[in-house]
Formats: sequence, C-alpha cells, structure tokens
Amino acid sequence: MKPLLPITLTADAFRPFGEVIETDNASEIHLINKGTTTRFHDIAPVDVSDKGGRPIISIFRGKPFVLPIRISMMERHPLGSQAFMPLAGRPYLVVVAQDMAGRPGEPQAFLASETQGVSYAKGTWHHPLLALGDVSDFLVLDRGSNDANLEEADYPEPYAINALT
Amino acid sequence: MKPLLPITLTADAFRPFGEVIETDNASEIHLINKGTTTRFHDIAPVDVSDKGGRPIISIFRGKPFVLPIRISMMERHPLGSQAFMPLAGRPYLVVVAQDMAGRPGEPQAFLASETQGVSYAKGTWHHPLLALGDVSDFLVLDRGSNDANLEEADYPEPYAINALT
Repeated sequence: MKPLLPITLTADAFRPFGEVIETDNASEIHLINKGTTTRFHDIAPVDVSDKGGRPIISIFRGKPFVLPIRISMMERHPLGSQAFMPLAGRPYLVVVAQDMAGRPGEPQAFLASETQGVSYAKGTWHHPLLALGDVSDFLVLDRGSNDANLEEADYPEPYAINALT
Repeated sequence: MKPLLPITLTADAFRPFGEVIETDNASEIHLINKGTTTRFHDIAPVDVSDKGGRPIISIFRGKPFVLPIRISMMERHPLGSQAFMPLAGRPYLVVVAQDMAGRPGEPQAFLASETQGVSYAKGTWHHPLLALGDVSDFLVLDRGSNDANLEEADYPEPYAINALT
C-alpha cells in the first residue's frame, strides 16, 4: 500500500475541497446580543438546493479507526455540500481528492483538531468519516431528498495512513 | 421580578417551539459507511428559504451568564428557523415563549445538557444565547440574507432565573 501522511488542516490548504468551519474562517465578525455574544458569521456555504434538495441536520456517530488506516475507496455527493462539525472534543482525519475525469485522484489527508469542522464542496471526493480515539459524534448538515446523491469509487491500489503526523 | 424556574430540556416539552437536536430525536437511524458510522437522520428541519434566504453556518461565542439571570426581553426571526449546537461541552439555558398577538407570552426556561442542541422554529420568541459556566462556542445554522429578520420585545416586568434546577 502506498503511504499517505496527513498534514495539519488549515482553511487555505483545504479550500480546493471546501471550507474549514472554525472562527478564524468567518467572513465577518459581529458583536451581538448587547455584547454578550460574538457572531463568527457565514463560515461555510450550504449548497444543497439542486433538484429540490433541502438542508437537514443529522448526527453521525463514528467508530474510531486505528492505525494503520487503509484508504481503499472514496465517495462523493454530486448534488450537495456536506458539513461535519466534531462534537466529541477529539481530533479526526479528513481524506479528500481532486476529481480526475470522474474518479478520485491522489488522496490528500488532513488531521483536523477537535474544534475544526469541514464542509465538503458539492461533488468533492472524500473518504467516509474517520473518527479517532473513541466513538465520536459529529453534527452533519447535508442535503435531504429521496434521489440518488452518492457515488463511490475504489482505488486500484490502496493507501495506508501509518501515522497521524 | 417574577421567578422563572428552568425545567429539563426534552424533545417533547420543546416541540411547541422547535426541535431538540439529539440522537434520540432522529426521524430515522441508519448504519452507513460499511458499519463504521451510525447516521441519526434528519433531526431538525432547516426552514430558511423564505424570501430568498439561504442556510449559513456560523459560530456563536457566548459569554457566560451568572445567577440570578434577568430575562427582560425576547427576540424572534420571522423569516427563518435558527439552530444552536453546543461545542463547549457545557450545559446552557434556553428561554422561549409562545406568541401572544405579536408579543412574547410567559417565558419558559429549559436547562439543556452539553449534548443537546435546539432549533427554534421560524418566528419562535426566544432569549438571546445564555451560555453558562465559561465562554462557550455554539455552531449556529440560520438564514443568510440582507433583509430584516429580527424582532425584539421587552417584557413589562422582567423575570429572574435564580437557580438552574
């Protein structure tokens, strides 16, 4: 298996794939509620309205993955963005890839901190949820509908994440 | 000031005002990602498309309130729902009211646990964010637009939350 080494997740490095959900990535910052609340405004778009889709709020509970982690397939949602926000206070892994003629290209792995969410842009190849350390909940915001919105693709040769940094 | 005593937040008690975002309140539960993830599906609607509104993801950072907490005003967003999910691992307070001819009726206070989010239904009177214990972040999903989507109303006589339970 080809080795795949995660890098630290930053908004700039992740931008080809979507947005990092963290206060530093807000488009505006407002003091509201008579000064008792700071609003870090409009951090990530929610792009789910294609073909009658609607935004829905769900919770994903992920089992932890243990090193070495085998990356043999990727998926994408052609009709909508999908956002994950960690609720468990633990880091997790994000693996994404550029599209290469309808298939995922070389994967790129990011180590996300416990305060960083990610929003995959519509149609972005990504690995299913990769929790670490213990069973972990994530708030998920994606597209609700009854139509097909999932593509999967296997890598001809799997990758292996052998270390987190 | 009239005393206001919080009750424990449950999905059933909160339903007149919106939905509680917790795994027990999912409309469906699916095992996905080859069994590594449980999807607690479609927990709360996101009702923000009135008049060209779009869903946006923000983070609210709330200063903690200290007892006794004075409840003297309420607000509502007539054009969209607004969801809060705690990220700080701490309980917080939720204060809501039925509408009485365009003004908030008697407030009802709920103590939310660190794993419970709330989604205020469109137009529901609620108090601004009431964090407890320390500065606390919340993921917020509400309506983005440039039009007016805020009404505020003062209570003739304030209420006081003197204890959490």
